[in-house]
Amino acid sequence: MRIGELSRATGVAIPTIKYYVREGLLPAGRLTSPNQASYDDSHVRRLRLIRGLMDVGGLSVSAVREVLAAVDTPDESVHKVLGAAQLAITPPPAVTPDGMEAARSKVAELIRQRGWRVEMENPAVEALAVALATFRGIGRGEFEEIMDDYADACERVAGADLAWVGRNAEVDSMVETVVVGTVLGDTVLMAMRRLAHADASARTYEDGQGEGEGGEG
Amino acid sequence: MRIGELSRATGVAIPTIKYYVREGLLPAGRLTSPNQASYDDSHVRRLRLIRGLMDVGGLSVSAVREVLAAVDTPDESVHKVLGAAQLAITPPPAVTPDGMEAARSKVAELIRQRGWRVEMENPAVEALAVALATFRGIGRGEFEEIMDDYADACERVAGADLAWVGRNAEVDSMVETVVVGTVLGDTVLMAMRRLAHADASARTYEDGQGEGEGGEG
Repeated sequence: MRIGELSRATGVAIPTIKYYVREGLLPAGRLTSPNQASYDDSHVRRLRLIRGLMDVGGLSVSAVREVLAAVDTPDESVHKVLGAAQLAITPPPAVTPDGMEAARSKVAELIRQRGWRVEMENPAVEALAVALATFRGIGRGEFEEIMDDYADACERVAGADLAWVGRNAEVDSMVETVVVGTVLGDTVLMAMRRLAHADASARTYEDGQGEGEGGEG
Repeated sequence: MRIGELSRATGVAIPTIKYYVREGLLPAGRLTSPNQASYDDSHVRRLRLIRGLMDVGGLSVSAVREVLAAVDTPDESVHKVLGAAQLAITPPPAVTPDGMEAARSKVAELIRQRGWRVEMENPAVEALAVALATFRGIGRGEFEEIMDDYADACERVAGADLAWVGRNAEVDSMVETVVVGTVLGDTVLMAMRRLAHADASARTYEDGQGEGEGGEG
């Protein structure tokens, strides 16, 4: 297909497509004449991935380039490619509160107890330690007592997420699902948690039912 | 206590304390002489709440004023006060993708099926609808198939959260826990979800164990 068809098929403007080619995100089309190139389905898929990473994942051009480099390295395992995608959308924590050493130990202990196979260099380890140190710093260290409920919930969500990612046959498509699912999934989780809070509060404080099931639905 | 002691007890600078009094966030001290005022433990608690709302919750002065107004209205139920605190830290979604009507119906259906006692005006309803509409808009509407796993996880977390909030006897303190716990709890949830992803990916793609428990701990 010509660049105009590629643009219509993906909703990406022609100058933007040319920009992605110049920046090395999208392979150039096959030249069919000195100033005309032909594109195929692999370009459509790649453009969708680029836009998913940028629009939903909020990735910069250089972050997209890194993710695509992992996708395009033939001997990388799926686990490594998914890890690279995850890494690109996990910014390092902006603050370093006091008490980070104790908080990091606590995170290491949680990971050990859970049997989670994660590397301690994973930026989410530091992000979790920052949150725990902040809780302690404001006198709310007892939050750690309910941390296992959070871990149970996250295992549940991650299991569903991975099964969803695994339904895609191609690595391109899996990477897109990881990025989109991680970013939008966070939003879903935050919104649903607030709804579940409102529900739990209504049950606890409106009629004293406490643990009641069902409701007015 | 004098304002200097109040400042030391809370870590809030004297000019800031005076600013909060002028803005109506903190009740004035009891005048003991024409230019000296006396403060008590209620001021310490209130200052901690103000700082928790601002520093951890990221609330503006006017948002803090609204939350405090709910805290200080004697005939408001605990449920209403917690709801006001929750509302203050839930900004309305910044975007309105196409397909919002269908997404809102889907959220209403979820709420009905779950028996969640929440008002449809809750901003989290709209936030969830935006996320679902975005998934559909990028051709990932099948995310809705795993939405119930998310809802199960959120009920689990919300139950633990509410029990934690309920350990505080005073409404001031409960409100602070709601705000701090909601905001920091989001961070914990996001970080743990990424760790659980890494673990699930390692199990699925590194050794094909799939559903295996345990690990290398």
